[in-house]
Amino acid sequence: MLGRNGAGKTTLLNIITNRIFPDTGEVLIDGIPVKENDDALKKVYMMSENNFYPAGMKIKEIYRWTKEFYPDFDTEYANKLADMFELSLNKTVKSLSTGYNSIFKIIIALSVNTPYVFLDEPVLGLDANHRDMFYRLLLEKYSESPSTYVLSTHLIEEVSNVIEHIIILKKGKIIKDESREDLMSYGYAVSGKVSLVDEFIIDKNVIGIDSIGGLKSAYIMGQVPKGNLPEGLEISKMDLQKLFIKLTDN
Amino acid sequence: MLGRNGAGKTTLLNIITNRIFPDTGEVLIDGIPVKENDDALKKVYMMSENNFYPAGMKIKEIYRWTKEFYPDFDTEYANKLADMFELSLNKTVKSLSTGYNSIFKIIIALSVNTPYVFLDEPVLGLDANHRDMFYRLLLEKYSESPSTYVLSTHLIEEVSNVIEHIIILKKGKIIKDESREDLMSYGYAVSGKVSLVDEFIIDKNVIGIDSIGGLKSAYIMGQVPKGNLPEGLEISKMDLQKLFIKLTDN
Repeated sequence: MLGRNGAGKTTLLNIITNRIFPDTGEVLIDGIPVKENDDALKKVYMMSENNFYPAGMKIKEIYRWTKEFYPDFDTEYANKLADMFELSLNKTVKSLSTGYNSIFKIIIALSVNTPYVFLDEPVLGLDANHRDMFYRLLLEKYSESPSTYVLSTHLIEEVSNVIEHIIILKKGKIIKDESREDLMSYGYAVSGKVSLVDEFIIDKNVIGIDSIGGLKSAYIMGQVPKGNLPEGLEISKMDLQKLFIKLTDN
Repeated sequence: MLGRNGAGKTTLLNIITNRIFPDTGEVLIDGIPVKENDDALKKVYMMSENNFYPAGMKIKEIYRWTKEFYPDFDTEYANKLADMFELSLNKTVKSLSTGYNSIFKIIIALSVNTPYVFLDEPVLGLDANHRDMFYRLLLEKYSESPSTYVLSTHLIEEVSNVIEHIIILKKGKIIKDESREDLMSYGYAVSGKVSLVDEFIIDKNVIGIDSIGGLKSAYIMGQVPKGNLPEGLEISKMDLQKLFIKLTDN
């Protein structure tokens, strides 16, 4: 789930998980309304950017309480992940850095084993190595379990190889809801010598340009034109992040 | 300047800008020690992740005070940028979201016109559109002015087209200090059919693999081998973020 700051991603997730109430409409999980319904809510875990845990509580205690509410929480697996991320279970929530504040919640999300798992900005503050580890663990987990994972993130290019389906929110409305493959087919990039690229793009909807020396890449909205390309030009896939920026800029 | 969480990036920046003192060694700016030397310190602006501004102060007052200390601060340009980022100058520091907390400081860094500008994690909390705008503005500013800009960031792949020189810190030590071009020559990627790639990499130092269907990409540390490649294999540049992860993983 992608959207600019303020588009309504966190609000939507809070409505889905019954933390705030919709003015109109209702949320169904497997056909059951979530409103004041513990059976429906137990099917859902949400990792928030904000903390709802007592600041002085130790991580191991939080894991113990999580298991009380979500009996399928896999404590052994959570401990293994804590080890991999070098998170000390005896630390309190308030003593954690921004990165580790994300990590202790990522670990719950990966260990909780509910049918639906929502992650709101899961990699905030994580360094590249830990982000890479998280994406690998998520794919591994997803391939082994039938759960649905919904990520909300600003690091669009990085997740583009991890996701199957994309929902884009803009000012509270869903403007795209389709497979990654379909969405990516909206645009393409063309690269080559400046003069060749300039000639090619003259009648195209260009949304961005990168230049290095005598070479140029242009990012174009629209279907790849049929027929042969002029020699010296190369067509490649559009970068998801560039496409997102174009779709959500005003 | 790249490094994992805890590598010492912020500590180094704080030493350079005289906010904390080194146990040994000294910092020279254009040959002049910075320690308790206002003339040297006025050549440097540092954008911190932490806030040193009074929480109740309005952004426009912060900009006014910045001009007192840095007379070359360009108020007109700062106002123009605030407009572009849709930052309201009448807001107080404490009322800003994580993203706008970064944005008001980015604007100072781009308007301050000191010979040296340090930016510590400048894009924390920014959405993709605002990050894109920041990188463009930074390049524009850099092409017009002779200032040196040092960025510390975890979003490595994104900045890889913006930077000229890379310093990598690992556990308090500099492990790389070279041009982006030189650093990128340490590794490469090879792609093609699984069987061809597997054969090619048998005697190589492989640091990562991506697979899609019957195709595979392997990331390899080392120089691109001389001579002809087996047909059906393609060599491409290594992704800077992958290279960083390999160099800093334990």
